[in-house]
Amino acid sequence: MRTYWSRLAANLEPYVPGEQPKDRTYIKLNTNENPYPPSPKVIEAIRAAANSDLKRYPDPNGDALRNTIAAYYGLQSDQVFLGNGSDEILAFSFSAFFDPDPDRPILFPDISYSFYPVYAHLYQIPYRCVPLHEDFSLPIEAFFQKNGGVILPNPNAPTGNAVSLSVIEEILRHNPEQTVIIDEAYIDFGGVSAVPLISRYPNLLIVHTLSKSRSLAGLRVGFALGHAGLIQGLNTIKNSFNSYTLDRLALVGAEAAIKDHAYFQATKNKIMRTRAHVVSELEGMGFYVIPSQANFVFISHPARPAEEIFTQLKERAVLVRYFKKPRIDNFLRVSIGSDEEMSSFLQALAAIIA
Amino acid sequence: MRTYWSRLAANLEPYVPGEQPKDRTYIKLNTNENPYPPSPKVIEAIRAAANSDLKRYPDPNGDALRNTIAAYYGLQSDQVFLGNGSDEILAFSFSAFFDPDPDRPILFPDISYSFYPVYAHLYQIPYRCVPLHEDFSLPIEAFFQKNGGVILPNPNAPTGNAVSLSVIEEILRHNPEQTVIIDEAYIDFGGVSAVPLISRYPNLLIVHTLSKSRSLAGLRVGFALGHAGLIQGLNTIKNSFNSYTLDRLALVGAEAAIKDHAYFQATKNKIMRTRAHVVSELEGMGFYVIPSQANFVFISHPARPAEEIFTQLKERAVLVRYFKKPRIDNFLRVSIGSDEEMSSFLQALAAIIA
Repeated sequence: MRTYWSRLAANLEPYVPGEQPKDRTYIKLNTNENPYPPSPKVIEAIRAAANSDLKRYPDPNGDALRNTIAAYYGLQSDQVFLGNGSDEILAFSFSAFFDPDPDRPILFPDISYSFYPVYAHLYQIPYRCVPLHEDFSLPIEAFFQKNGGVILPNPNAPTGNAVSLSVIEEILRHNPEQTVIIDEAYIDFGGVSAVPLISRYPNLLIVHTLSKSRSLAGLRVGFALGHAGLIQGLNTIKNSFNSYTLDRLALVGAEAAIKDHAYFQATKNKIMRTRAHVVSELEGMGFYVIPSQANFVFISHPARPAEEIFTQLKERAVLVRYFKKPRIDNFLRVSIGSDEEMSSFLQALAAIIA
Repeated sequence: MRTYWSRLAANLEPYVPGEQPKDRTYIKLNTNENPYPPSPKVIEAIRAAANSDLKRYPDPNGDALRNTIAAYYGLQSDQVFLGNGSDEILAFSFSAFFDPDPDRPILFPDISYSFYPVYAHLYQIPYRCVPLHEDFSLPIEAFFQKNGGVILPNPNAPTGNAVSLSVIEEILRHNPEQTVIIDEAYIDFGGVSAVPLISRYPNLLIVHTLSKSRSLAGLRVGFALGHAGLIQGLNTIKNSFNSYTLDRLALVGAEAAIKDHAYFQATKNKIMRTRAHVVSELEGMGFYVIPSQANFVFISHPARPAEEIFTQLKERAVLVRYFKKPRIDNFLRVSIGSDEEMSSFLQALAAIIA
């Protein structure tokens, strides 16, 4: 039978998110969710907004939330773009800033967020993967080659590695004609944000999410920061796709989350403390742990294959993420959960490698 | 200064939704929202789901909601696709089912949802507009010409005109190699749904929204119904774009809305009764009213220009929709509000045309 699919659809290989099994209760360390609930003020704001106004369309521009985010980062509202999760913003960015020129591929690291090549295929943007060094650190000069744009997660995923602001700036300086996207999904866990560079680099787009450091994976809110010209480009694509990408509840919940700075500080600090403890325990058990500035660690054992550990952890009701991909197929990405969750994880791990 | 926009972005002309002015309180009859609040069970479900689980990603496939919708329509779950509003589903459909073949343009009516040509430009799908007859009825045979796909709203917007199931079936029979999308955003207000044809036409995709008949414009939920093969095509695009398009609150709110059949029946019947009354009043005032099966009416006055009426209504705090476009620039689209809202509208209108 004819499938009726377009040629594009027939040739796509979609992204596969971390599994969400329903068969039993797991300690879930596979999708970098935050172990702590969102701020009580978020819950309050959402409950208050769950009212008859839901019959009305949301503000298509999300002005109140954009103003709040702009004030938080010391920017203007027209330097803020909102999306249905940072994934939607990344997708729009490929369409807004990258061209399908075969002689100008976009650049991103070979070990990186595995959604980037999927977007490239969806929008038919040629790309070149920049091989990271053996230790997964960034070969900066490789981003100086001729290209049609750069996309770089900082900290990187799934490694957790972060680069300094001067590295970002050097890449920006060498690419004055291209849009450089810094994906800061994990920046709040110890990295240094490139936001201060926005005023000097009209080609810098920074993408954030509320899914990780704001404990709101279930609400689907992300935002981008950059020169008003870039934000306008994103709006052109968004408004050619869906006028209202954020619902009323997501808009108010996100606003409350950004405003509760104290809660945010407290939970991210807890996660960073837990991470430090987990890293030292893992190293004590003989694991190689990439230095992480994110809410996960990327680890490898000298004697036991990662896939085997992954499977045995799952049998013990602990879910971590395993990528069966060249260069990283002997690593596991482990989200930083609560102290209790990480104790259970470390215990299970100790039993497996014993 | 260089804009950094892609060539695509530079050439797009985005869709402009009905205005949402904040300067004063209007009687808002310009975006086809439902005047009645969502079911109390929706509010209840959302408040209950506003809890610590928001830290977790939603079910990327929305199984519970898909099961509910499938049961409601007597379909299987794999015949249901969920989207962040029906607009997102329409966007995905252009990508999933239509190819950029210049000799096979897709077809849609010239007077129709003005987002269709925007999608076509976004995905670079050639299209041909089928001119409606003088009275805005559908020239069925025009959809038998060589094409790369068909998209047809039923009832049509902004006219409110509906076609019978036999017309839909004839178009399906003449296009066995193409995907035929029936956009049933307004079907619940008196039209006949094409859902019963799904079992016989693997090329039929039906798109619905909860924004209109379920009073949930603010929650952003739409769904598509069709053969499992078509739904899989949509999933391929969606999963190459954003794994989680519906947040946890939207998923549970939508489920409660579909389940509260009695509330849905009561509110849509109220709107249909109000529409009948409004139509007879308008005709009494000398307006030409296109027969409507939707929650709006499309009207024209023999003596007074529509744009002038639009402006004067706005001055009197009544917002309706005016499209400055060929063939319909002497019409106004007026959403059916509550009886009270429509009385105020009719009063204002009477004063204007007096």
